[in-house]
Amino acid sequence: MPWQVLGVNKKYSIGIDLGGTNLRAALINSQWKIKERIALATSGIREEALKQIEEVIEKLKKKEGDILGIGIGSPGNIDVAEGIIYDAPNIKGWNDVPLKSYVEGKAGLPAFIDNDANMMALAESRLGAGVGAKNIVCLTLGTGVGGALIVNGKLYHGAALTAAEIGHIPVNMNGPLCNCGGRGCLERYVGNRFIVERAVERIEREGGSLIVGLVGGDLGKVTPEIISQAALKGDKLSVEIWNEVGRYIGVAIAGLANLLNPEIVIIGGGVANADFLVFDEIKATIKKRAMRMPAKMVRVVPAKLGGDAGMIGAGILVWEKMVDRL
Amino acid sequence: MPWQVLGVNKKYSIGIDLGGTNLRAALINSQWKIKERIALATSGIREEALKQIEEVIEKLKKKEGDILGIGIGSPGNIDVAEGIIYDAPNIKGWNDVPLKSYVEGKAGLPAFIDNDANMMALAESRLGAGVGAKNIVCLTLGTGVGGALIVNGKLYHGAALTAAEIGHIPVNMNGPLCNCGGRGCLERYVGNRFIVERAVERIEREGGSLIVGLVGGDLGKVTPEIISQAALKGDKLSVEIWNEVGRYIGVAIAGLANLLNPEIVIIGGGVANADFLVFDEIKATIKKRAMRMPAKMVRVVPAKLGGDAGMIGAGILVWEKMVDRL
Repeated sequence: MPWQVLGVNKKYSIGIDLGGTNLRAALINSQWKIKERIALATSGIREEALKQIEEVIEKLKKKEGDILGIGIGSPGNIDVAEGIIYDAPNIKGWNDVPLKSYVEGKAGLPAFIDNDANMMALAESRLGAGVGAKNIVCLTLGTGVGGALIVNGKLYHGAALTAAEIGHIPVNMNGPLCNCGGRGCLERYVGNRFIVERAVERIEREGGSLIVGLVGGDLGKVTPEIISQAALKGDKLSVEIWNEVGRYIGVAIAGLANLLNPEIVIIGGGVANADFLVFDEIKATIKKRAMRMPAKMVRVVPAKLGGDAGMIGAGILVWEKMVDRL
Repeated sequence: MPWQVLGVNKKYSIGIDLGGTNLRAALINSQWKIKERIALATSGIREEALKQIEEVIEKLKKKEGDILGIGIGSPGNIDVAEGIIYDAPNIKGWNDVPLKSYVEGKAGLPAFIDNDANMMALAESRLGAGVGAKNIVCLTLGTGVGGALIVNGKLYHGAALTAAEIGHIPVNMNGPLCNCGGRGCLERYVGNRFIVERAVERIEREGGSLIVGLVGGDLGKVTPEIISQAALKGDKLSVEIWNEVGRYIGVAIAGLANLLNPEIVIIGGGVANADFLVFDEIKATIKKRAMRMPAKMVRVVPAKLGGDAGMIGAGILVWEKMVDRL
């Protein structure tokens, strides 16, 4: 439920989603609606990215007294209490950035920093696919596998504020090494790169996939999108690749269902328009592998808010931090 | 912190731990100390078990007005809101038992029912190994692998109130079938029966273990205790069996650390005095496999309160449900 607070219903928060590729920012009103938006390509360099953040805030501030505060979602490990980003792989020098104090100093407004997956989860839980649920698991698929947990209606951060690394739950302790140091982590199977890798390996071994024609014979050009195109044309190997992705995700969610017994699992990010192939297999795997009660209880649904989710969530964060709910 | 509440500091709660073998009950005062205790062998039949509960309550009630309420920890799936036990494998007919309303009717006092692993976790978090920690994972080893989660200082029950089935987190999606329907669940590797099974298989294949002499050549007599005895005498196969148990648990905890980033993991129940062999391997596995921050943060410790934990936790539950903290 949006806020209805006397005296602040004319104000906005600024929500910023600092993605690896795009920076999106918006004014979010007390009803959690977007009132104005800006999008630009994120600079890959620390000083420039900081300057960009400063500039979008200036543009959105409009007039004195209108803005409640600023919320920013960023990739990487973040100390949400201090507002420091420890590291984020996609922006050069984006390590140990005291983003909260930097932004507060420049803008003269309170700022709140959190992980991008958490901001997406907050928006989906308040306005999107998770409305009404108290215990939510969020998964974002892409280059990496991000995650967020909503517990009793609130974002769960854990003791060192690094929780919800759903991509690094092992699904096979004897599986291949993962960047994180573990073995057989979910991300090691369903991160974009590994999906492509398995498809290419199978084509080299078995041949006979539509993918070969789609990339003009150059297997270096295979992407998740290409595998989806082939799957949509009925290519058996491509369909199997996406089913397999669904199975890996389903195994991880079955374990999460047994452990956390959530009402809902929201899956966002790209599975490259192969959603139907992936979701059916996820659901079948959970039904087969999770315990009766949690399997019956959990709904697995796609995210609703698309690319705006992070920015909206960052805006909502400000409202929730600064204004008491009625 | 114990309660210090004017007007109720002379009262007790009754805490009951309904185990598969023993029923333990005690008067728990406002400082969470045991003031009087009863233990008896649990009847394996529903009607008799209910009668036993009634009797221990009568004995502990002493005089009118002294008792705040009754807390009961039971194995099995439990609806903690309604106080109904859906099923518990060790007591015949112990299905769909409306234990809360039964006890309230008989005793004329408020009753609270929860899972035995949750009661153990509550006691350990308030008085035992978890004092001071807000986010705790509890594991109990034995015939089955039980679990409990404390999130932000409170027991976490999940949406259908079945959460924390840590024994049914998959550690190997290609592993052997588990009773729960999954594959390669933690319990399928470290439940007592499976530890014994692997030891016997290896002896039959490889021979040459001290275990053979300890059971007089009858491999049907192998127990976790026997494997521990052999391990303590330096038997290589037995040491490896316990190390392997530690590795499986370590893999599951590494995943939990990445997911929940807890301050502490408390392990209770019997690993048959082979704790040192198991704990060292658990810690080494977490260090190797979990992500840097959660691995650094998490402490893995044995439970402190032993067999009294469930009963104490059930008593504490009553205090926490019925009296506000100062």
